[in-house]
Amino acid sequence: MMKTGDLRRAFTYLESGAVLLVTTNDGTRDNVMTISWQMVMDFTPRIAISTGSWNESFQTILDQKECCLCVPPFNLLETVVEIGVRHGSEGDKFELFHLPRKQAKKVKAPIVSNCLAAIECRLEDYVEDHGLLILRGVQLWENAALKDKRVIHANGDGTFFADGEFRNLREKMRQWVPDGSERL
Amino acid sequence: MMKTGDLRRAFTYLESGAVLLVTTNDGTRDNVMTISWQMVMDFTPRIAISTGSWNESFQTILDQKECCLCVPPFNLLETVVEIGVRHGSEGDKFELFHLPRKQAKKVKAPIVSNCLAAIECRLEDYVEDHGLLILRGVQLWENAALKDKRVIHANGDGTFFADGEFRNLREKMRQWVPDGSERL
Repeated sequence: MMKTGDLRRAFTYLESGAVLLVTTNDGTRDNVMTISWQMVMDFTPRIAISTGSWNESFQTILDQKECCLCVPPFNLLETVVEIGVRHGSEGDKFELFHLPRKQAKKVKAPIVSNCLAAIECRLEDYVEDHGLLILRGVQLWENAALKDKRVIHANGDGTFFADGEFRNLREKMRQWVPDGSERL
Repeated sequence: MMKTGDLRRAFTYLESGAVLLVTTNDGTRDNVMTISWQMVMDFTPRIAISTGSWNESFQTILDQKECCLCVPPFNLLETVVEIGVRHGSEGDKFELFHLPRKQAKKVKAPIVSNCLAAIECRLEDYVEDHGLLILRGVQLWENAALKDKRVIHANGDGTFFADGEFRNLREKMRQWVPDGSERL
């Protein structure tokens, strides 16, 4: 069950290099694409994604100035890859992949509700020289009930890793970890 | 043993969200810092890193227009975190942490030679509005002999994951995987 959460921990779902589903709504139709070229830029959070005109979603984000970044668990890997290799023009990807969706609070783009987390984002800037969209997260959703909490890491050569061994080094990093950022 | 490798697979060491050691040389002295805010921007590869004036290395990269991105294995996690919380002004971090180093081929910044891989980079641009350094990889080094090949993923809240379960979906992604990018 997706529930809203504290925005101060939103960046922790992205920073480790999670593969993301990016959802949009162009005023009529929902769409979804897969990206792994993403970066946290600060804790508020601002997030950069690298994409371009070959993605239908790119133009929609420029036009609507918003999107959702959804964090799929590793057991959705095959679907996430299929979403990535299909173009929006091939039909409604939500229907095609039976993706459950939920209405967001602050943007029109939907939330993929079997994801680990979702961040509603507004577009802050487009750095055209480098094809970078600069997003600001405005609302966090979290799905604490999900059994598989491992995110997907793409190596970029068609291979993937799930999160593996866990280590907690908060004591060493106390001064660098903002208040309220500890993940559920 | 670090050996030079095919630059076409350099991005595969970064795309999954690996925590990186960034080395610099200011003309006199080597320095090293830890970052996890990094993003692959294309396959050539261009890489964005998000940093600022609180890091001594930031000014050195602007001045020297180069650095190395080194990819430490998970068993170096504690050292990587210690490097991250120390400022360059506290002394030579290579000495302090007994980091083995090796001369790079195309830049003055050194390679941390017990890493999984290292990418020599030139600075292409500084996007001042967003604190982004845009780097171009010019030389790849790889350490195929290393026993622990798991990269470090930072969640940003003081906790970390190593690479875990592996999946190969190259067949599904054939059209999206550039020639020569398969990792060793």
